[in-house]
Amino acid sequence: MPEVFSPIRWKSNQLELIDQRALPDREVWLNVTSVEQTAQAITDMVVRGAPAIGITAAYGVALSCLEISQKKSKEWKHLLSKDLELLAQSRPTAVNLFWALERMQSVLNEAESPSQAFEIALTEAKMIHQEDYQMNLAIGEYGSSLLPDSAVVLTHCNTGALATGGHGTALGVIRSAWQKGNLQHVYANETRPWLQGSRLTIWELLKENIPCTLQADSAAALLMKSKKIDWIIVGADRIAANGDTANKIGTYSLALLAKAHGVKFMVAAPTSTIDMQLESGDLIPIEERSAGELWSSASKTDIPEKLNFHNPVFDVTPAGFIDAIVTEKGIATSNERGLFSQAFSTWFQA
Amino acid sequence: MPEVFSPIRWKSNQLELIDQRALPDREVWLNVTSVEQTAQAITDMVVRGAPAIGITAAYGVALSCLEISQKKSKEWKHLLSKDLELLAQSRPTAVNLFWALERMQSVLNEAESPSQAFEIALTEAKMIHQEDYQMNLAIGEYGSSLLPDSAVVLTHCNTGALATGGHGTALGVIRSAWQKGNLQHVYANETRPWLQGSRLTIWELLKENIPCTLQADSAAALLMKSKKIDWIIVGADRIAANGDTANKIGTYSLALLAKAHGVKFMVAAPTSTIDMQLESGDLIPIEERSAGELWSSASKTDIPEKLNFHNPVFDVTPAGFIDAIVTEKGIATSNERGLFSQAFSTWFQA
Repeated sequence: MPEVFSPIRWKSNQLELIDQRALPDREVWLNVTSVEQTAQAITDMVVRGAPAIGITAAYGVALSCLEISQKKSKEWKHLLSKDLELLAQSRPTAVNLFWALERMQSVLNEAESPSQAFEIALTEAKMIHQEDYQMNLAIGEYGSSLLPDSAVVLTHCNTGALATGGHGTALGVIRSAWQKGNLQHVYANETRPWLQGSRLTIWELLKENIPCTLQADSAAALLMKSKKIDWIIVGADRIAANGDTANKIGTYSLALLAKAHGVKFMVAAPTSTIDMQLESGDLIPIEERSAGELWSSASKTDIPEKLNFHNPVFDVTPAGFIDAIVTEKGIATSNERGLFSQAFSTWFQA
Repeated sequence: MPEVFSPIRWKSNQLELIDQRALPDREVWLNVTSVEQTAQAITDMVVRGAPAIGITAAYGVALSCLEISQKKSKEWKHLLSKDLELLAQSRPTAVNLFWALERMQSVLNEAESPSQAFEIALTEAKMIHQEDYQMNLAIGEYGSSLLPDSAVVLTHCNTGALATGGHGTALGVIRSAWQKGNLQHVYANETRPWLQGSRLTIWELLKENIPCTLQADSAAALLMKSKKIDWIIVGADRIAANGDTANKIGTYSLALLAKAHGVKFMVAAPTSTIDMQLESGDLIPIEERSAGELWSSASKTDIPEKLNFHNPVFDVTPAGFIDAIVTEKGIATSNERGLFSQAFSTWFQA
């Protein structure tokens, strides 16, 4: 890995993870030396962001192989598959987690000894990490090419180095633009209820001295009305074959407001986020999170029995509100006939 | 006053104020026995909401007269005007505060003795309080007549009994609809950064057993897309002659989203909120609040020097996005030619 910030580091046969729960107050790195600790770190939200979770789990498999090679057990393949199962259980809804574990399992089938397994696992984990970083650089390059000089942009949630193997997706586009010298200012929504914007995105932006402004999510419309915003740039949890995009709650709202104010709207994500089996965003179920996330900000008392909560994790932005979907393979723009599907099919032909 | 909840009570020659800073955790009533304590309570945000501040100041004048009558000083008129000045300084940007103090001053010009001044001041303060309550009942009656049966509504910020002399404005419309039996459900935005929605509006709704749901501000667009919302109902800080409305930050955003989803949008406020000298909302300056309001939710550390904040108190919703403006004098609906100005001019002719 080049010298860039990553929330995940492999050093002296240990995994080091930045504890995202402590940010922005303190930069705490946890030393993770076992597969159990890895699974726990994923469960406890030390690591968040789909790509970062996948990479962490891959290094967890390497830690498992290291432990097993020290035990010199004949049952090592059995122990290894138990550890893979443990990691799979750590965040049962994370698609990237399963993708990474399957890829590790597949290369480990070739291993003939525990020590060879460790070599293979560590090499593959580093490769997954490196590939993610390289994809983000490509996304950043393509995405930033769409921005005007001295661009002023708005972003939502955290899609930066902290959520990935480094650089980031939507925040990677912003970072690339800054490095090229064609970014003037970034506005960041605080992103209720988790505050990924004020806690994590602002931390990343300040760390790199990128000029930035924090606002409440509901100030976005006034911002677009009163200041020149060139692009809104967001990430994606899942993109349907027609370009409909599921992302952090509030994204759909921003896309509508952008259209009303003539602000361009960009989605930046790796092609692994595109699900060509999913015809449209209507088929994406909307998961709801716990009431406590909303109530704890208002009160220290127990959650009132009679109070209901509407706390969706994400919403779906129709493709018609998106001007560009940028992946590591290039830029897809909407067209009257098939929206994004034409560009997508080129990417998936290979 | 009839037996309704008011955040302000006069009892045994004392003023009692509910401490809004302690809500929803604890219902604390403060006994206020002097004009100094009254001014402090206004400064310290024990009381908030323009009408509630005006009423509190009026009772503060009565407390002043009571104290002065006990001193038996010949300089009583001088002492009284010093106290009025003290109250005027308690929240220098509150228009309702000055309106109430001027009205008190004007009736007190007739007083010939301190004890007579107290009688006059208390009578006038009670009248200001009662009038505000009656206006809210009228707003509630008119506003609720616009709702369909089993209405489902969304509101923003707190415009309830806590912000007024009782009943409330936008929340007064909702309360009236509930009392008439034609309200099914209320959604409330938490209203960042102060959380007036989750702290105060939800407290009022639960107190009266009105079925309610809390959501993050940025979940409003998804709510309108996925559920049948009949009306969004909000209050107003200031309404221009053409109907453009300044209200809590996030209101403009909601109005745009309502239009996009075919949801009706109502502003409920007394006619004293309408400024006929103000041609349009473009002339309303947007006040910004402190950075701490946003930062303190994200971190316990000091505010980073390099971080900028966009923290406007309110935004302006163009009249074209508003379906009805409801006051104690009736319902104004927009029309192609003059928007709301025709209805407004009828109200102000008398």
